[in-house]
Parts: sequence; C-alpha cells; structure tokens
Amino acid sequence: MYKCNSRRLQELIEQFSQFGATDNGGVTRLSLSDEDVLARNYFCECCKALGMDIQVDDMGNIYATLPGKKDMPPIVMGSHLDSVEKGGRFDGVLGVLTAIEAIRTIKENEIEMDIPLMIVNFTNEEGARFDPAMMSSGVITSKFDKEKMLQSTDKNGIRFHEALQASGYEGEQENRLKEALAYIELHIEQGPVLEAKQREIGVVEGVLGMVCYEITITGQSNHAGTTPMSMRKDPMIVASTIITELHEQLGKIDEQLVFTFGRMNVSPNIHTVIPNKVTFTIDSRHQDPEVMQQVEDILNALPETAGGCSIHPTKLWGRETVYFDAAICDEVERACQSFGYSAHRMFSGAGHDAQYMASMVPSAMIFVPSIEGKSHCEEEETTFEDCAKGADILLETVLTLQTKFSIGETYTLH
Amino acid sequence: MYKCNSRRLQELIEQFSQFGATDNGGVTRLSLSDEDVLARNYFCECCKALGMDIQVDDMGNIYATLPGKKDMPPIVMGSHLDSVEKGGRFDGVLGVLTAIEAIRTIKENEIEMDIPLMIVNFTNEEGARFDPAMMSSGVITSKFDKEKMLQSTDKNGIRFHEALQASGYEGEQENRLKEALAYIELHIEQGPVLEAKQREIGVVEGVLGMVCYEITITGQSNHAGTTPMSMRKDPMIVASTIITELHEQLGKIDEQLVFTFGRMNVSPNIHTVIPNKVTFTIDSRHQDPEVMQQVEDILNALPETAGGCSIHPTKLWGRETVYFDAAICDEVERACQSFGYSAHRMFSGAGHDAQYMASMVPSAMIFVPSIEGKSHCEEEETTFEDCAKGADILLETVLTLQTKFSIGETYTLH
Repeated sequence: MYKCNSRRLQELIEQFSQFGATDNGGVTRLSLSDEDVLARNYFCECCKALGMDIQVDDMGNIYATLPGKKDMPPIVMGSHLDSVEKGGRFDGVLGVLTAIEAIRTIKENEIEMDIPLMIVNFTNEEGARFDPAMMSSGVITSKFDKEKMLQSTDKNGIRFHEALQASGYEGEQENRLKEALAYIELHIEQGPVLEAKQREIGVVEGVLGMVCYEITITGQSNHAGTTPMSMRKDPMIVASTIITELHEQLGKIDEQLVFTFGRMNVSPNIHTVIPNKVTFTIDSRHQDPEVMQQVEDILNALPETAGGCSIHPTKLWGRETVYFDAAICDEVERACQSFGYSAHRMFSGAGHDAQYMASMVPSAMIFVPSIEGKSHCEEEETTFEDCAKGADILLETVLTLQTKFSIGETYTLH
Repeated sequence: MYKCNSRRLQELIEQFSQFGATDNGGVTRLSLSDEDVLARNYFCECCKALGMDIQVDDMGNIYATLPGKKDMPPIVMGSHLDSVEKGGRFDGVLGVLTAIEAIRTIKENEIEMDIPLMIVNFTNEEGARFDPAMMSSGVITSKFDKEKMLQSTDKNGIRFHEALQASGYEGEQENRLKEALAYIELHIEQGPVLEAKQREIGVVEGVLGMVCYEITITGQSNHAGTTPMSMRKDPMIVASTIITELHEQLGKIDEQLVFTFGRMNVSPNIHTVIPNKVTFTIDSRHQDPEVMQQVEDILNALPETAGGCSIHPTKLWGRETVYFDAAICDEVERACQSFGYSAHRMFSGAGHDAQYMASMVPSAMIFVPSIEGKSHCEEEETTFEDCAKGADILLETVLTLQTKFSIGETYTLH
C-alpha cells in the first residue's frame, strides 16, 4: 500500500485555488476563461514534469498519459478544472489534482506500470458558462451533437467554439479518448450524507435517475381589493395547496427519494393583483425506476382544474439511473478496508462526467465528504486530510486494477 | 329630474379614448405624457366652451369652475385623466367626462346655479409612471410632502417636476382647492360585484382599510440531488404550508374580508437548487378595523421557525378605512330611487382620490359596473348605457346638493 503525500496534495490544491481566486476563498473559473486557461496550462506543466504525454481533442478535453510497459488502453482518472461563478476550491479540480498526486506517488516510489495511466480534464463540466453541463464528456460518448455544442453561447454572446479557439485548447478529433480499461473519478460529495454518517469515503454506485416537471397553473388576474374571495380564480392558492399535498404524498414513498420545488414564477407578481399564472418546477431523484414512475404517476394524476384554475404538468426532462461498474466499486471499498477508512456505499444525486463515461468504459466514482454539504459556493470545504484519504483510495484502486488488468483480468460494463 | 344625453356622453368617451389609444382598444395615457397633455388640453377646451374658468395648481391639478350666483365654495366633481400602461378607456376619465356631461346638461336646460360647480382633474392618480398613486390629491390634502413628490422619478429617469414643467401644466400653489362644499367622484367599480348582483349603481360608503405584510422565510440552499429530505431547510415547503393554512384560517373570519398573496420571490430560483429564501406578500382589506386587527394578529402569531426555517412577517404598510359622508351617500341612493336605477351600497376595495379628499371635504363616490370586473387592462369595459346612468345620478346628486346648500343646509365631515 502506498500512501499519498498529504502535504504535497494540499500545496497543489492551494496552487490551483489561485486560478480565479475570489475574495471570499472561492474560485470563479468559468470554462475556457482566462482563469481556466491558467489552470489548464499549469495542469499540463505538472503532468509533463511527471513524464506524461499531453493530447488535446476537438472539444478541448486534455489527456495526460503516463506510458505503461504494455501496449494496452489506459486506466483513466480525472474530472474537470472549470467551476461555477463564485464556486469552491474543490468541486471538479480535486479529481484532477488527486490523480496528479497519485502519479507523483507512483513516480516517487518507482512503481512500475504495465498499463498506461491517464489523467483527463473534461471541458465545461459545469455548464455554468455554456449550456449544457457535462458538455464535452457528453460529446465524446455521443450524448450530444458536437456541432450544436460549438454554437452554445455564453451570456456575453460568445460562442463555445470561439472561446475554445481563443483558449488555444482546440485539438484534433482523432485525439478523443476512444478506449480505456476503466474510468475513476474522485469528487467532493456536494451533499451532507458522509459528514452526517461520519464516513471518510463514499463508494459511489451510480447516479440517481431524475425527472423534472414544470407545473403551470392558470387562473385570472383581478384587483386584490375589489374581487370577493368567492369570485376569484387564484393560481397562488392552488399552487400552494398542490406543493403542500405533493410534499405530504411524495414524502411517504421512500426515504431515499428527494424532490425539490426550486423555481417558482408568479405573474404579474404585484402585491395588489391576484396572479393569473403561477409556474413551478419539481425535480425528483431516486435510483429505482419504479419509484420514479410512482412520482411521475402522481404528477400526471394532478387534477386538470382546481379553484377555478387549470393545471398543466409538463415533463421538462428526465434521465435514467446510471449504474457504475460493480466490480470497480468493490475494489474501491476493498481499498478503504485496507487503509482502515470508513466507507459508505451511495448514489450520486448530482450529475458528473462519470455518468457519461460509464456508457463507454467501466467506471466508478469516489466521494470525499463536503463540510455541511456545501457546494457551488465560496464556502465549499473539504478537509485536506479527507482529500488525502481520497487520493490514497484513488491510487490504491488504480494500482489494484492495473495489476489485475496486466494479468489479463477484465471488467465488463455493468 | 334631468337626464343626461347618453349619445353625447358616448361620443365624449370615444373622443378621449383617442388620446393614447392602444391597438387592442385600451389606452396608455401615463401621467404628464404627451397623450395625457392632449387629454388635458381637450378637457380644458370642453370646459371653456361651457363658460367654465380654468385654474391649474402647482401639482398640475386642473380646476374648471362654472360660476354660481352666490359667492360660496364649489361643489366639486372629478377624477383623473391618466391611465396605467395598456389600461382601459373608463378608469378615471369617466369621472371627469360624466362631470362634463352633467354641466352640459345643466347648460342645455338653462338650470340656474346658486353654487359654483367645479370639475377637477387630479394629476398622477395611477402612480403608474410616478410613485405613489393619488399623488396630487395627496399633496393638496397634506398626505404627501410636495418636495418629495417633485423628485419622484419614472423608469426613464425623468423626475415628476421635469415632466410637470415640460407638460405646460405647472400652475400656482395658490390655485389649489382649499375649500369645497362637497366632492363627488364617479368611477368604474373595477370589481365584479355590481355585475354579479345585477345592480346599476354602486353607492360607495368608503374605502376599505388595508394592511400589506411581507413574509420572509429563510432556509438553507443545497443541491436538489444530494441533500436527503430529512436534512433540508426548505423555505418553499414552509411558504406553501403557511399560505395554505392562512387561506384556510383567514377565510373563516368574514366573507367580506379579501386577502391576496400577489407577489412571491424565490431565491436563487433554480430548479436544481433548494431555495434559501422565499418572500411573499399578503394584502388584506376589510372595512372593520377589528377584522383587520384579527388579520394582523394571525400574521404576527406565525411561528418564528418551522421546518428548520426562520419566519419573519414585516408590515409594509396599512391604511385605515376611509368613510365617506353618510348624508351625501343617502342623496346618491335617493337619486337612484328617483331614476329607478338599482343601487348597491358598498365599499371600494381600490384606492381613489376621493379617499384623500374625504379628509378635507364631505365626499362620496358613485360606482358604475365593470364587465367581468376587469380593470387596468385593455379589456376594461362598462356599457355606455351604464355610463349614462352614472352621469344621471351624478347630476341629480349635484343638483340636490346645490339646492340644499343654497338654502343654508350643510354637510359635515362624517
């Protein structure tokens, strides 16, 4: 067992925190921004110093490869260097930096590798500058159409393609990752479960399926002072009743089910006017497709009218649960046992590049705890100790896999 | 009894509808806009043609006076010529035009008047361009500070004072109405009650007292996918529950009580994020101060915390019920009986210049029915027949009052 260098990893995290540092200890490192380019450049520099070969594909994904003795596809680690506006210092970047620390430990200990090891930085995972999220892992796994993605435009009217060209990171399509033995992504949990359960490592078995509905309730605007209650068609009352009842009803299905009424828009939204329209979203996630079906059935069984208003549920989108490779998950858990780190098997409620990679490569994720579950904010925090434990598990899992692959064992897509 | 000329009134309404006419049959005649100035000019022209004397005060209020044989304060009719953006053809302007029609009928029938009759057009009643509403009746009755009002700025950065000067309607402070025997304002109901009750005339006894509260519920933002339900502090759930419960609880107090949750703002209002803050308003109106106190007691008795969130009610403002002059209301109702028009005694849920005038002059209002209760929209409608009936009642009331005043009867402030 090889332990990573906690102090060295902390320094690396602190170095990368400078690229787009905000006043309150976070980072703003939007995809393909100047700050992102600084981070990319330094990433390449670190990898070259380790004797790794750098390739860039047509979506700006960067692949750094440490050659192995055998001519085989690589074992891939990685995540993304971009952040949201005023995001934290750990989201995404930690998966890249723990991979660098893993390679540094390998080099330092002169561990001989039969299988090539690769670190990948995926472009525009956040989708904070260019919609959609997980854009470039999505393109190389055929989830998104590249030409459409190139036209995606930021709020200043800059197209993704322009930004990619300006960054100097537009490479060749032939450099895309086409084959790999495994993909392992370390990430902060972005939720409060590990902390609450006092576990050090999350063994991530997959990404929750989700549906997002928009419920539109249409009534009739009228003067707040002159319209008797009995003559109103008030969509705000109907919306509140529906949310209260759905909260009650969905809350009984399964304690693992999560659902969120995150967005509500009221029209005309004037205090002296009865609204004519209230629209709200419900985002719901669970690993079991049958549970998700129950949620959809409940939403689709909403009455067509109530309180004089019409009620229209519209499905905005959904995704099916993505299951990671069970055998790799087992290796992650065994690594935790070896190190004596407490592990918790869980699903990710958030989306990650790994969910697209999983359709192409046997994949898994390793979570480290988020303090108070905070993420996508400057207060996002994970202790350096926990980061280092994550790096230990990442390295140990990769070493185990490389040994098994080199003697001919294979992992198949779950 | 003198009956107004329905055809002539219709033509006058149609003429004024041209000033700021919108494509869909409404008007946009924001206060002191070019369209408002056209309407003001034509109003002055009509009054001059009737032998009336025009005065303008320092707030741009226009007073047209038909002299009486006795040197006494006038009986005043009137309302406002300004409209909201894409408003209707009746709101405000009808009170001015029925007054012109009343004077025309008086002149046509050569009715001798002992008491001077005045028509007033108040500046910026709507508050749609310059906050607050009822600005200029408020200034002359000492509700608002003139210097502050002059600084009120529209969305293009134009100050009220600049607009007033540019309009050519900045007159002298000494021209303000200081004394009157009575003030009678005819207005569309802006609500559905007269239509529903099939009554032709509303005898308005006052303007409902109101309170407006803002309820702020503060929770904690977290990722919609990664935060278990049991660990959430979701203000949207709390807000929905409170609205549902308040709707139930307030609904039991009195069937005349109206309350509206018109405005809700959710932060950050993203479908994948549990909100951290939900703010909503509740506007509530009733004529009885004890009922209003019950409402306030209920709002102030909301728990300080629920579902992990804090709950803060803030009183944005309130107004006490304004009672109109009971004797004048009786005259309005008697006029209805004389004409055989069905009358309904009611309170106004909306604010009007009359509510400020009532503190200075014995006042009352006459409502005519609004079709489907619609107002502040291009679909606002009142039949010309109902408009004419309103003019009949306005004229009859004024004639009765002038007879009584001229023989020495007085009306005191209620």
